[in-house]
Amino acid sequence: MMDLLKQIQIVLVETSHSGNIGSTARAMKTMGLSHLRLVSPKQEIDEQAIALSAGAKDLLEQAQVFNSFDQAIADCQLVIGTSARLRHLQSSLIEPRACGELAIQRAIQGKVAIVFGRERVGLTNEELLKCHYHLNVPTNAEYGSLNLAMAVQLVSYEVRMAWLNFSKNLQKSPQNSPLVEKANINYPSAESLEHFFNHTERLYRELGFIRNDAVMLKLRRLYQRCELETAELNLLRGMLTSVEKKIHQD
Amino acid sequence: MMDLLKQIQIVLVETSHSGNIGSTARAMKTMGLSHLRLVSPKQEIDEQAIALSAGAKDLLEQAQVFNSFDQAIADCQLVIGTSARLRHLQSSLIEPRACGELAIQRAIQGKVAIVFGRERVGLTNEELLKCHYHLNVPTNAEYGSLNLAMAVQLVSYEVRMAWLNFSKNLQKSPQNSPLVEKANINYPSAESLEHFFNHTERLYRELGFIRNDAVMLKLRRLYQRCELETAELNLLRGMLTSVEKKIHQD
Repeated sequence: MMDLLKQIQIVLVETSHSGNIGSTARAMKTMGLSHLRLVSPKQEIDEQAIALSAGAKDLLEQAQVFNSFDQAIADCQLVIGTSARLRHLQSSLIEPRACGELAIQRAIQGKVAIVFGRERVGLTNEELLKCHYHLNVPTNAEYGSLNLAMAVQLVSYEVRMAWLNFSKNLQKSPQNSPLVEKANINYPSAESLEHFFNHTERLYRELGFIRNDAVMLKLRRLYQRCELETAELNLLRGMLTSVEKKIHQD
Repeated sequence: MMDLLKQIQIVLVETSHSGNIGSTARAMKTMGLSHLRLVSPKQEIDEQAIALSAGAKDLLEQAQVFNSFDQAIADCQLVIGTSARLRHLQSSLIEPRACGELAIQRAIQGKVAIVFGRERVGLTNEELLKCHYHLNVPTNAEYGSLNLAMAVQLVSYEVRMAWLNFSKNLQKSPQNSPLVEKANINYPSAESLEHFFNHTERLYRELGFIRNDAVMLKLRRLYQRCELETAELNLLRGMLTSVEKKIHQD
């Protein structure tokens, strides 16, 4: 069986303190995760990062650095965003346990990004909109100040627990696992989804239907929540193209 | 309903770095835990500890400091010990999720200690023997270097999850909860249990039955694993006393 844990990409966006990057690497490695992605970190991987990574220096050396959020998630089929400011995103909120299960379930199919925002301000609304799910750690209502690397530790732990459970269940009944059945479904990459949204917006602006941002916000929420499959996406894009052909032929 | 989270005592034994005490306080508070106990910390609560505690300085101010492990757990009815070197303690091992559920279940009755050992060497064998259960975080077999405060974060998170589930279930069916039924059972404090073990050893050494440590080790494991109830403890102590009376009257 392929190593599902290798499919999980931990993405840190514009991290301010290199020490947090080091502690994140250590936290990941204790739980068997190995793929770290950094979007425009404010400090490079320095002495402080290496010191706090303890024996997880290899993760720092292999970390991929990206210039944009979009690039960092482009090849991932599921994107889970986490931020302290998520209370308004009711419909797509999940807790760490569900996040771990979902990540492992979808890792059978492709890469999964779990994205952690900036230390103080989290992810931007634009970034949150590009996530299928939004992770909410049910912290103390009076004190929710979870350190970045601590949050990574919790989520990595739940991913590992889900992976251990999955491996155990697979040994018991390899044929009947609902996860194996779900493995036959093909999901599009974040990049493909983005092309679809851009295609939609372009067409419907041209049509005069879209005049402000509200429509696309609603469409994004809809399609991300329903976890669009590749076949469905192809269908939807085919529909867009058919409309385009029609309006451009006249 | 009383606040079960207040029953949970996080105990750090001979912590080397004050920063870890600060990070532990922060980790606890994010999950709604408030009671921190320190056994002979190697460094006092200093600037570093306060800095890393972020907004959890109140936990540091209220932390209780003890000179011995025994004193720190004396008033607790359930003691869960955690250490990196636990592989040999097969029968009493639990994972963080079960630890959280057990802690909340027993918090209905009395105080629960969750004990974390020294950064490098964990808990001593003697200390481990005084724990009812032993917590094992299922880390990466090739890299299990979990930071102390990270371990506290994981365990505190599982305690909180169990507490949230318990509160939810209680609202659904307050009368039928198995946990509420279990609340009618009375469990002895660690101190009472220790008196019992000492009483037993004293008597059986006097009787010439105990000549080395092996017997008491086995008895401790037995009674701790079965979670002796107060009524049972009283019965056993009554039995010891009856033997004593008999042998001393001649």
